[in-house]
Amino acid sequence: MSAPVAIVMGSQSDWPTMKCAAEVLGELGVAHDCRIVSAHRTPDRMADFAHGAHGEGFKVIIAGAGGAAHLPGMIAAMTHLPVLGVPVKSSMLSGHDSLLSIVQMPGGVPVGTLAIGEAGAKNAGLLAAAILATSDEALTTRLKEWRQGQTDAVAERPVD
Amino acid sequence: MSAPVAIVMGSQSDWPTMKCAAEVLGELGVAHDCRIVSAHRTPDRMADFAHGAHGEGFKVIIAGAGGAAHLPGMIAAMTHLPVLGVPVKSSMLSGHDSLLSIVQMPGGVPVGTLAIGEAGAKNAGLLAAAILATSDEALTTRLKEWRQGQTDAVAERPVD
Amino acid sequence: MSAPVAIVMGSQSDWPTMKCAAEVLGELGVAHDCRIVSAHRTPDRMADFAHGAHGEGFKVIIAGAGGAAHLPGMIAAMTHLPVLGVPVKSSMLSGHDSLLSIVQMPGGVPVGTLAIGEAGAKNAGLLAAAILATSDEALTTRLKEWRQGQTDAVAERPVD
Amino acid sequence: MSAPVAIVMGSQSDWPTMKCAAEVLGELGVAHDCRIVSAHRTPDRMADFAHGAHGEGFKVIIAGAGGAAHLPGMIAAMTHLPVLGVPVKSSMLSGHDSLLSIVQMPGGVPVGTLAIGEAGAKNAGLLAAAILATSDEALTTRLKEWRQGQTDAVAERPVD
Amino acid sequence: MSAPVAIVMGSQSDWPTMKCAAEVLGELGVAHDCRIVSAHRTPDRMADFAHGAHGEGFKVIIAGAGGAAHLPGMIAAMTHLPVLGVPVKSSMLSGHDSLLSIVQMPGGVPVGTLAIGEAGAKNAGLLAAAILATSDEALTTRLKEWRQGQTDAVAERPVD
Amino acid sequence: MSAPVAIVMGSQSDWPTMKCAAEVLGELGVAHDCRIVSAHRTPDRMADFAHGAHGEGFKVIIAGAGGAAHLPGMIAAMTHLPVLGVPVKSSMLSGHDSLLSIVQMPGGVPVGTLAIGEAGAKNAGLLAAAILATSDEALTTRLKEWRQGQTDAVAERPVD
Amino acid sequence: MSAPVAIVMGSQSDWPTMKCAAEVLGELGVAHDCRIVSAHRTPDRMADFAHGAHGEGFKVIIAGAGGAAHLPGMIAAMTHLPVLGVPVKSSMLSGHDSLLSIVQMPGGVPVGTLAIGEAGAKNAGLLAAAILATSDEALTTRLKEWRQGQTDAVAERPVD
Amino acid sequence: MSAPVAIVMGSQSDWPTMKCAAEVLGELGVAHDCRIVSAHRTPDRMADFAHGAHGEGFKVIIAGAGGAAHLPGMIAAMTHLPVLGVPVKSSMLSGHDSLLSIVQMPGGVPVGTLAIGEAGAKNAGLLAAAILATSDEALTTRLKEWRQGQTDAVAERPVD
Repeated sequence: MSAPVAIVMGSQSDWPTMKCAAEVLGELGVAHDCRIVSAHRTPDRMADFAHGAHGEGFKVIIAGAGGAAHLPGMIAAMTHLPVLGVPVKSSMLSGHDSLLSIVQMPGGVPVGTLAIGEAGAKNAGLLAAAILATSDEALTTRLKEWRQGQTDAVAERPVD
Repeated sequence: MSAPVAIVMGSQSDWPTMKCAAEVLGELGVAHDCRIVSAHRTPDRMADFAHGAHGEGFKVIIAGAGGAAHLPGMIAAMTHLPVLGVPVKSSMLSGHDSLLSIVQMPGGVPVGTLAIGEAGAKNAGLLAAAILATSDEALTTRLKEWRQGQTDAVAERPVD
Repeated sequence: MSAPVAIVMGSQSDWPTMKCAAEVLGELGVAHDCRIVSAHRTPDRMADFAHGAHGEGFKVIIAGAGGAAHLPGMIAAMTHLPVLGVPVKSSMLSGHDSLLSIVQMPGGVPVGTLAIGEAGAKNAGLLAAAILATSDEALTTRLKEWRQGQTDAVAERPVD
Repeated sequence: MSAPVAIVMGSQSDWPTMKCAAEVLGELGVAHDCRIVSAHRTPDRMADFAHGAHGEGFKVIIAGAGGAAHLPGMIAAMTHLPVLGVPVKSSMLSGHDSLLSIVQMPGGVPVGTLAIGEAGAKNAGLLAAAILATSDEALTTRLKEWRQGQTDAVAERPVD
Repeated sequence: MSAPVAIVMGSQSDWPTMKCAAEVLGELGVAHDCRIVSAHRTPDRMADFAHGAHGEGFKVIIAGAGGAAHLPGMIAAMTHLPVLGVPVKSSMLSGHDSLLSIVQMPGGVPVGTLAIGEAGAKNAGLLAAAILATSDEALTTRLKEWRQGQTDAVAERPVD
Repeated sequence: MSAPVAIVMGSQSDWPTMKCAAEVLGELGVAHDCRIVSAHRTPDRMADFAHGAHGEGFKVIIAGAGGAAHLPGMIAAMTHLPVLGVPVKSSMLSGHDSLLSIVQMPGGVPVGTLAIGEAGAKNAGLLAAAILATSDEALTTRLKEWRQGQTDAVAERPVD
Repeated sequence: MSAPVAIVMGSQSDWPTMKCAAEVLGELGVAHDCRIVSAHRTPDRMADFAHGAHGEGFKVIIAGAGGAAHLPGMIAAMTHLPVLGVPVKSSMLSGHDSLLSIVQMPGGVPVGTLAIGEAGAKNAGLLAAAILATSDEALTTRLKEWRQGQTDAVAERPVD
Repeated sequence: MSAPVAIVMGSQSDWPTMKCAAEVLGELGVAHDCRIVSAHRTPDRMADFAHGAHGEGFKVIIAGAGGAAHLPGMIAAMTHLPVLGVPVKSSMLSGHDSLLSIVQMPGGVPVGTLAIGEAGAKNAGLLAAAILATSDEALTTRLKEWRQGQTDAVAERPVD
């Protein structure tokens, strides 16, 4: 059976950020497939991926990109699947450009956008799991345990 | 049966924005429940709502707020359900504060954030439908038709 | 013979801005073709346009879009023709999002970006003409005359 | 007797910033209690703390957080005590997101916000002391001496 | 007996904003004195006011200003009393300049800063009351009632 | 025969950025001439260059500058040739000032602006080549091969 | 005798802003000459003006411009006279672009920059007068009286 | 005879920036006096300095400060002498807060503002010299020579 979550990114340089999504999906036992799909350098591969994603069995797509980050929005334009966008930190404007390029989509084509950088990638993985959990009770249980573990790990007082 | 989508907002003044989410869910035949739940003025009502949302049968929560917009993130902190955040335009900073307050969540507690204002609210409705459609073939069909209708409505040339 | 300049935009609402490009091309006697091509609502039409633009005889493409403005960059990804981008003023962030979404393209896929709004659209028309003029002496002459006329129209002193 | 000032923060990583508040309160002889209370990872602990703060004997609360910084505002929503917010520098947007998330509170629930980072934490300690000094003459005297010492420490001329 | 709260502002044009502070203090039964004290046009009057505020019996100072808003910080430099700053919306930069000019004080001289505009002014009044309430049980009761009234006024559902 | 592309920059410190334009033009076999022409320190040399550029045989001008970056716009004011602007990263504001100073030209005098920094310089080279290719079939072929090579170099999957 | 202050601006549309400089100079009895000199549309007229300004008898130059505002900096590049820059409010970015384009000059070519818009223009006039007053005792007296009048005009209390 | 230029700054930490003003004044043979005068920590020393500056024989004041930078504006409020402001780079917001706090002065009290950081400090020195040169022919000559030397130092071509 195919993986339910696709993690796509514009270039190898996005992987140190995007692997945070893969890691948390791994912790939650959610299969995922990671690919490099560049909106600008491989637009036809992107179109093939987006048009075929539903047929390949994907249920949620996580897309990360930086700068004039068009990947999440363009995939969202070519599939009805839920698309989550991760703004990768850009070298010049700290990801502010990435954020606006991903989140400010016009009405009609949604991209659920997470925070800039690694926190956002991790949260994209968590949100993808939460989406799948809406119809998967076992995953719901694992997700709630993961969240409880996170709560339990918070200490009472700061250590100098 | 309860509605699968909750649309919550911080105040009555957010409704002109948030009703765009309700409208598109209506077009797609997705039941939804709209409530005013203020993170700042009714924090206990918010906690009750968030803790009880799964039990009430909600599968996706759409939360809209403006300024120091804490509602989406705080609900996300108290439920494992997917939470979508809509930054409502603020009177002073055009929603830039709303956007950053919603999207820049720390790793561990995701909010899928949409665009500022009405376009974002409409897209929150569409994304909620896309999430439900991952386990609902009939809704998938309706969603694809809605999207096709949107594509068909784009004219070939501008009219002066 | 086909027009050398294509003016494309994401929606009818961009036309009041983008017609400034058409008007100045008209003043310079440069034929142009105006179309609505939405990256998000008609991605396949966009791909067909971009892949076919060279074959249709276009030499320069002017693309305008607002918000998460993906149209100029995506067309640039699918053609080797020079692409000029016009950030259309957005309702929430005054075109700041449009500007960053268009100009911050990654190395390898250029978009020559003009100012936000009508001034940018007019300048896209002028720059398209300047590009064509690199191999068209008659157009060079008309362009220089247009520029001289602009210079001559500047008054010496402000009028109260 | 309980301490009059609570210093709370979202995570251990905020401590290098927030300890500047503790240090200046120590210099002024004001007892304080430092805790980690995460709005997002321990929302129930936060609610318990905020609802119980008055009963515990706290008179002023200093809360520091970064990114989508909800801690100060949420505590302010659940207590009538004065709440001072410290925007902790965020890794991506230099604390600009933290600042807007804390300061742009809606009318009805105030957070007195200080500068981003260590200067802000130090000033939160000083402002907490100034607040307590409104009904404590001995503290007023110590605060005025502290301020005078600061003035006296400014050299006349820069040293190369 | 003198009023415990001074509300000062840079010019008459700040009054429509700053009167929101006066109004909420009036609702809470807290006496207050409103004055125009310009850091830039009446610097000596400002110094006299700040140096004399404690002696006049003031316990908290609320200062509002716009643009390069120096009033709150300069008063804070000349008194040990708690100073609350309200960034007034500026005509050009929407109060973004006012906010940064007030909140980014150096370590040693605190200004508790509220939101830009009327919400911030109202909250300055509420925070001043909360500060006074730390040593005034009757005011604590009135403040809690005011807050409860605000909570009770939030409707359950939006009205179309 | 003279080179068709001039690459000018405000100072030696811009060269590490601007040489990315020279490099890609070299890869594409497009002759180019690099000069230091400062709008602020050598305004007369700039005017001589701009007025004489057409006569020297240049067809496209690439101009890079940082901060209050006036070079691209001033050259554009003094020639009808297409001018491409590269915002060089500034030490204080990360090139945000450079970008706005270059792109926000008034209607009548266009500068085709690329991304901040090295990516923008590389793209200026590519766009200059694309402009020349509108009347040079051999260059069109080389440009398409370069673009294809870029597409072929994108791996399928990220490598850890 | 020629006027000591030149007020130049990029276009007639800047006059409603720039006339505030003229008005205050008039109140102070300082002769001034107002001209339209566009950096972009009349670059040669600008160069002639700047190179000849000292010879014409000008002692201070006030230059206002908007958007990619190059006029003040380019004049400063071509004269040793003190140049004061006024960022005119731009239609898209509220003068933020104008401000950065004027103030962020490289080391070596100064422009003394005032606030965005009418306040800045008025202050440019006052600063020009203050500059002339460094060697004109009568003007010093008039300037001090003007400033005293301003101070005297500040009311004690706001009027509802 | 006293020095004609005062260079004042808020703290010792501003000296590495502000000494660039001193250095260029030294090169131009303009005497200057450097002092630490903190608006926030030594407000009375600041007032004494500003009120007495004219009497001490100063003709121009250069003031540098960072963050909520009130020093230039407050000095300008207390003297009719020309005041030049240098925004010192702040640790959190890169001097953006310093810039807005200095430049956005209200109409009536001008501060001629230079660029953020060392370039701005150097330019403040140059502008102070230009101001003094309006009534000093020998200084005019030295300033023109300095400017010519700067022009002569610009190389023709970049060196790899």
